[in-house]
Amino acid sequence: MSTNIPYKIYLEESELPQSWYNLRADMKNKPAPLLNPGTHEPMTAEELSPVFCEELVRQELDDTTQYFKIPDEIVSFYKMYRPSPLVRAYCLEEKLQTPAKIYYKFEGNNTSGSHKLNSAIAQAYYAKKQGLKGVTTETGAGQWGTALSMACSYFDLDCKVFMVKVSYEQKPFRREVMRTYGASVTPSPSETTNIGKKILAEHPGTTGSLGCAISEAVEVATSTEGYRYVLGSVLNQVLLHQSVIGLETKSALDKYGIKPDIIIGCAGGGSNLGGLISPFMGEKLRGEADYRIIAVEPVSCPSFTRGTFAYDFCDTGMVCPLAKMYTLGSGYIPAPNHAGGLRYHGMSSTLSQLYADGLMEAVSVPQTEVFKAAEEFARIEGILPAPESSHAIKVALDEAKKCKETGEEKTIVFGLTGTGYFDMVAYEKFHNGEMDDYVPTDEEIAASVAKLPKI
Amino acid sequence: MSTNIPYKIYLEESELPQSWYNLRADMKNKPAPLLNPGTHEPMTAEELSPVFCEELVRQELDDTTQYFKIPDEIVSFYKMYRPSPLVRAYCLEEKLQTPAKIYYKFEGNNTSGSHKLNSAIAQAYYAKKQGLKGVTTETGAGQWGTALSMACSYFDLDCKVFMVKVSYEQKPFRREVMRTYGASVTPSPSETTNIGKKILAEHPGTTGSLGCAISEAVEVATSTEGYRYVLGSVLNQVLLHQSVIGLETKSALDKYGIKPDIIIGCAGGGSNLGGLISPFMGEKLRGEADYRIIAVEPVSCPSFTRGTFAYDFCDTGMVCPLAKMYTLGSGYIPAPNHAGGLRYHGMSSTLSQLYADGLMEAVSVPQTEVFKAAEEFARIEGILPAPESSHAIKVALDEAKKCKETGEEKTIVFGLTGTGYFDMVAYEKFHNGEMDDYVPTDEEIAASVAKLPKI
Repeated sequence: MSTNIPYKIYLEESELPQSWYNLRADMKNKPAPLLNPGTHEPMTAEELSPVFCEELVRQELDDTTQYFKIPDEIVSFYKMYRPSPLVRAYCLEEKLQTPAKIYYKFEGNNTSGSHKLNSAIAQAYYAKKQGLKGVTTETGAGQWGTALSMACSYFDLDCKVFMVKVSYEQKPFRREVMRTYGASVTPSPSETTNIGKKILAEHPGTTGSLGCAISEAVEVATSTEGYRYVLGSVLNQVLLHQSVIGLETKSALDKYGIKPDIIIGCAGGGSNLGGLISPFMGEKLRGEADYRIIAVEPVSCPSFTRGTFAYDFCDTGMVCPLAKMYTLGSGYIPAPNHAGGLRYHGMSSTLSQLYADGLMEAVSVPQTEVFKAAEEFARIEGILPAPESSHAIKVALDEAKKCKETGEEKTIVFGLTGTGYFDMVAYEKFHNGEMDDYVPTDEEIAASVAKLPKI
Repeated sequence: MSTNIPYKIYLEESELPQSWYNLRADMKNKPAPLLNPGTHEPMTAEELSPVFCEELVRQELDDTTQYFKIPDEIVSFYKMYRPSPLVRAYCLEEKLQTPAKIYYKFEGNNTSGSHKLNSAIAQAYYAKKQGLKGVTTETGAGQWGTALSMACSYFDLDCKVFMVKVSYEQKPFRREVMRTYGASVTPSPSETTNIGKKILAEHPGTTGSLGCAISEAVEVATSTEGYRYVLGSVLNQVLLHQSVIGLETKSALDKYGIKPDIIIGCAGGGSNLGGLISPFMGEKLRGEADYRIIAVEPVSCPSFTRGTFAYDFCDTGMVCPLAKMYTLGSGYIPAPNHAGGLRYHGMSSTLSQLYADGLMEAVSVPQTEVFKAAEEFARIEGILPAPESSHAIKVALDEAKKCKETGEEKTIVFGLTGTGYFDMVAYEKFHNGEMDDYVPTDEEIAASVAKLPKI
């Protein structure tokens, strides 16, 4: 065991990144623009501004500016929970008897329990700066809703969260955390919006979906004076804010002269993975270094590994702009999987372009294997991981075990995006042997993809 | 806002304490010894060793050795989650517009969610070193059981937890975390012990109590080859291990030349408070410095503020040794209070002696005030606190507000012992206005205290 590198590398507060890095600036093949769902023309700032704050629209559309200065107010907030630790997994290495060196960037040490807070605070800040009264959003598993509630509470902004009804009922504790931070939480579909009423009339007794919750949140934002809609993943602006994860990781590694061989992250909409890999991918794009970069997704929702690279709706309700991305079709309903944050039919346009250009790999893994890895990790490293994060753990363990076989001393870095304290129902199912691994058939995926819009 | 002191003071791993500090060594009036419940003579090492590990018995009885070296294996484990941050509550100070300087030592950034892990890992280590197969314990709210499960998992020890039945049923997530770490969790009273069977026969349908769970855990430990019983609070050995909290706090303050005026901690059995204050109280005992030290307890379980300083049983079942302490009587049943960790009829003998000698103060606070303070703190500082920890927050806020009135720039340090992620039922009751503040009558307390053993 090396004694030079500490168990946890904490950067000083003075080493906190002062700018976000915009990966798109270094991409030769830029991610395709969002299209207006009516005209199929690229969305303009004017068209986006009724939905998003002005500054966030600017960030969304800018693919040439390399760095955006992080406003002082956001840096101050970051200091309450950042820099987050880069942990050397000495105990795990010893237990696995692997020559690999394993590091993980841990984003779970804040009350939202995940990396989502990095973008939530930025989006709340710009809303406040624009003089808005509040923001609306949707939440499924609840991590994003919790993060946004915390951010809005800090800036004294109203926060209206539409929570998928089934989650609202099954995850009362998540709901209660949001209420503690002063957010109003409405089960979706609800009688408070036109789209909600319409859906309830057509499907009485429905337990809701993320697509429906998005539609309700957008409706309230665009029809209420002083409100805008905010989103926790997929968008370019979110990846920009999440670059703070990768920048800190790179600074911490550089400080100790460590060069990773493999970088691994879970991928739902791409917010964590895009943030973690950004400075490394930047070096790769500029020809300064090379890394293996691996996205991990569930076999039940395999956008990268079995989806199609095409324009599609970002939401099931088909009210949002079209994005070019790896998608299973906006009507694809993933089988129940306990990593709610990874149950999204599409993928960030930026990551999709990088994957299409062969700059990163992707693998899909079954959830029982993921929970096995989660439990192994928890027992050795102490941290109880979120099911989403555990997808990255599973592949990191696999790679470390390969190193044991080959004797290679590879340096593996993975993103540990959050904690699983609100996911104990899933762990219970796993312990009781009640968890299954549904793999969609080719026919199912083909049928869903066949309904992609014709662009 | 001073820019010299960071938001979070993280000591280097090399600055982690290498020894625990034994406060008793510096006490002129030593805490009274444990007594054999049959003979009323001081318990000997021989009498204690069927229940506790040998090294822990030694630590329990030693009131003269000032420092105990922390074994390397424990230091290694500590490095996974320690040093814990000492946080400067800049945001809170600004919001309160107080000239006070507020610091809190945050012990919640580990999966057990509290400081309990500091002693759990030590007790598991000594059990392993002695060649034992496993340990038994009881848990109420579940923090101690979770911490012990993690510690046993790390050292590959069996861990049998008796969980008060009502908690077992109402807190299935806590139970599931323990199972994730490989512990067996039995609702108490159970059919697996003689005492459990007896209680079930006498009180069919009982939902259990901490006292009963202790009795079951002790029975299994003393009747099973290779097992011992471990306890998460009250005992001298636990305060010794928890001194790591105070030692780190003092090092961090010294590093920046900060001298606290007031030190505040919540008090149930005394594990956190005793640990936090130890080096400061040591200076006070040696005449090197002076500090105001405040213990905070719930009005529903006011051991310090309304109890009697006398010998009493540590458990309701009256099988454990007698300890001299501030007590409400071992038969006292506190009204339901959501700070389960503070619902103990007695108090650490060490802290009791210090309180009797006028070296510290104590106050009791109603739980609705505590939850108001908790929510205020969460919204400003981001961290969702445990109900137990929030007792200290409440009094820290009160003291900071007093400074605003008087203009005094006092430095306040309080212990933030843990997070409230598994306490959302309590927060929900608070939000819904369903929480009450039962204050026991003088008659109730007198009736309970009247049954103290005659020593």
